[in-house]
Amino acid sequence: MPRYKLTIEYDGGPYAGWQRQVDEPSVQAVIERAAHRLCGTAPTLFGAGRTDAGVHASGQVAHIDLPKAYGGETVRDALNAHMRDDPVVILTAEEVPDDFDARFSARKRWYLYRILNRRAPAAILKGQVWWVSKPLDPLAMHAAAQALVGTHDFTTFRSTHCQAKNPIRTLETLEVRPGPDGEIHIIAMAQSFLHNQIRSFAGTLKLVGEGKWSVGDVANALQARDRKACGPVAPPDGLYLTAVDYTGGAKRTLPPYSAPA
Amino acid sequence: MPRYKLTIEYDGGPYAGWQRQVDEPSVQAVIERAAHRLCGTAPTLFGAGRTDAGVHASGQVAHIDLPKAYGGETVRDALNAHMRDDPVVILTAEEVPDDFDARFSARKRWYLYRILNRRAPAAILKGQVWWVSKPLDPLAMHAAAQALVGTHDFTTFRSTHCQAKNPIRTLETLEVRPGPDGEIHIIAMAQSFLHNQIRSFAGTLKLVGEGKWSVGDVANALQARDRKACGPVAPPDGLYLTAVDYTGGAKRTLPPYSAPA
Repeated sequence: MPRYKLTIEYDGGPYAGWQRQVDEPSVQAVIERAAHRLCGTAPTLFGAGRTDAGVHASGQVAHIDLPKAYGGETVRDALNAHMRDDPVVILTAEEVPDDFDARFSARKRWYLYRILNRRAPAAILKGQVWWVSKPLDPLAMHAAAQALVGTHDFTTFRSTHCQAKNPIRTLETLEVRPGPDGEIHIIAMAQSFLHNQIRSFAGTLKLVGEGKWSVGDVANALQARDRKACGPVAPPDGLYLTAVDYTGGAKRTLPPYSAPA
Repeated sequence: MPRYKLTIEYDGGPYAGWQRQVDEPSVQAVIERAAHRLCGTAPTLFGAGRTDAGVHASGQVAHIDLPKAYGGETVRDALNAHMRDDPVVILTAEEVPDDFDARFSARKRWYLYRILNRRAPAAILKGQVWWVSKPLDPLAMHAAAQALVGTHDFTTFRSTHCQAKNPIRTLETLEVRPGPDGEIHIIAMAQSFLHNQIRSFAGTLKLVGEGKWSVGDVANALQARDRKACGPVAPPDGLYLTAVDYTGGAKRTLPPYSAPA
């Protein structure tokens, strides 16, 4: 059975998350239902990141085995035609070797957290950003973020429901940058993340941005290895899984950070 | 009664348009209802541009007379607090002289039309862009757009329902530029526009972008002064009223157009 690598964009708002559930709508179920309509069988979809309820993706990756070698463009267009009523689309589909595993072969997962930092709430971007009305200092947030980069026990920054056995992760990138039109962007990259880790970072860095916490407070919270030391968890609206990198793929890098004048 | 100038952002999706209507939701009615809650009276809101059903704004301007000198920040925050359930927000509110008229004092109206030009439909941007799957040539579109700039009889490019007596308008800017993430942006500026004029431009320029029409075809359509010579009208989803300029305000200019290499 040919295996396909799918790159997927979705608005997470209407879904209980990526993962298929018995009673609630999920992104996985939407795509699996489309695949069922395409090929008559009921193939299982394996995603690189199990995004939570309300979390979006502009570059989620998944693999799926289909009974026929349809060709990548046909798979992409046919699945999209079957998902017209859902805000879920296949950006690309390509045939890959049988040993490609979207989850276990992933080397880098990239996330973007978007904060809309202005006095007026979001209108056009409602549900797509975290609205923070108090002015934030992105330079202070960036400085504090660097205290989290590296290999650490991230117990402070994971949900009490996190099922990972090991709370140690290597955070390779955590950049805070001014974005367009009053946005502040947090860009995070690691091979893997703990449950709620980036939303815990975003909520904690917001405390730094509004001057309530210092850089040292963030370092102390990390060292505490205690969930109670974490800032409030930021809402899912602002979080996007933007890319997943695999061995042999194009090397993705961020442009160097240059602080605004 | 103090007069306030409001700058307004909204997602036009849920509304039958800017203008108050008896049976359908409108942006004007949402803001007037909020003003009623704020001050107890029922003030009328006068907008610079009567956007159609589904058309968005990131910089609509309106004026309203309120019975008290609340101060601009109070007006902005109070109106926003009363519109929490609607994707409509006041970005700024400032007290202005009594002779300021949002509609009749306007000197330049700026619009943006966003096309998402890729094979996969919009997911995150559903309702916020016009999805065009066939690859478009923005350079050809830009060249054709220049045939429309200037003072012309725009009968070809206005709705048969347009109520303006005079079909002559002076189009000061019509730029087509590649945008981020597969978008193509059309930027239009004039003192005033005819009904459906920009959506008629967008639908016609799309024909140029996909190679069906030449630059000369657009010039001929303009000269025909015949609605039947127009391309299909583009959907409202991609259209944004981005700014309105008044005498004495800051001079707004586009960065010079530089064609991609």
